Amino acid sequence: MIQLETAHESPLEIRLLAKTSPAWISQVLEKFDLFLVDHAACERKASATAIQFVVKYPDRLGLVDPMIRLAREELLHFHQVARLLLERKISIGGDEKDPYINLLLGECRHGRDEHFLDRLLCFGVVEARGTERFGLVAENHPDSSLRRFYRKLTEAEARHHQSFVDLACLYFEQEQVEERLRFLLQREAEIVSVLKLRPAVH
Amino acid sequence: MIQLETAHESPLEIRLLAKTSPAWISQVLEKFDLFLVDHAACERKASATAIQFVVKYPDRLGLVDPMIRLAREELLHFHQVARLLLERKISIGGDEKDPYINLLLGECRHGRDEHFLDRLLCFGVVEARGTERFGLVAENHPDSSLRRFYRKLTEAEARHHQSFVDLACLYFEQEQVEERLRFLLQREAEIVSVLKLRPAVH
Repeated sequence: MIQLETAHESPLEIRLLAKTSPAWISQVLEKFDLFLVDHAACERKASATAIQFVVKYPDRLGLVDPMIRLAREELLHFHQVARLLLERKISIGGDEKDPYINLLLGECRHGRDEHFLDRLLCFGVVEARGTERFGLVAENHPDSSLRRFYRKLTEAEARHHQSFVDLACLYFEQEQVEERLRFLLQREAEIVSVLKLRPAVH
Repeated sequence: MIQLETAHESPLEIRLLAKTSPAWISQVLEKFDLFLVDHAACERKASATAIQFVVKYPDRLGLVDPMIRLAREELLHFHQVARLLLERKISIGGDEKDPYINLLLGECRHGRDEHFLDRLLCFGVVEARGTERFGLVAENHPDSSLRRFYRKLTEAEARHHQSFVDLACLYFEQEQVEERLRFLLQREAEIVSVLKLRPAVH
């Protein structure tokens, strides 16, 4: 009989080591249509990633409910951003690589357990960066309904990044999670500092 | 400026040419846990397929809202079936090929437009078969709460298969859709008749 595990809120939190440059929000506001296209793709991919966790690790039942819940919420966000694009008669865009995600995922170790832990934490860090940046849109966009929309998204993303850390602490020792998180946060800060700013989530 | 298209309910309907053998429901009820694992996978893949339509044909804006709506509903069903599995402490299962889907999709023609039309209709036919079979579970399962659950699913799948036909009629002449649908329904009936019965959706 398989053991049912449930994640609890862990004392660990993700705190990004580098703030986003103020030049980022200027670019986003200037080319907001481009930003929306990228944002839609991010939500769509985040949903697919959460489902991948469930499929790739079918023996880890503690993933099932939180990851499907997260996937559904990201798909709702994809729908909401897709509607914003439709209102503007903008195509939703195709499938493009995200250099930030690829560089960060490049830090994941091999080995079933190591890879699993690193992927959980990487996506936690990605959601934390999303929280910070959607927060900047929520503060700075001239349109009040968009400010409200991005404020709600910011709250949701904050819940999501915690969910990844809680799952990491369900399956690994807190010390191990902390050490790896520290490393990945450092790498993330370096990646953010070297990547060219774009009117995109990352 | 891109044209916004909206699908309307078309007069075309999908009517399967072959009924499911009564031996199918016996197998399903006998090995209901195996059926649930397969059912979960079907819902998950149906959601991903709907999103693929949006990503693969970004210039066809009429797909965006109905396909994301469908993807969200399928993901809700995936969540519901996943919960049934969790209650039973059964793993959600990995990624396995579905011979029925593969044989049916093998009938899709090449060429951008032909492929698009055929895929829309194939998935419409798949949903129609799902409607029929979930209806059999809704009628025959000894557990009343599962009967109710499958009755609701049957209604949802019926809406979905109509949605694929309506989209086909938005982008192609009705005559062309009718002809191709007739062909695919014939092939589907043949596929169903040759495939070994399994405790699975298809």
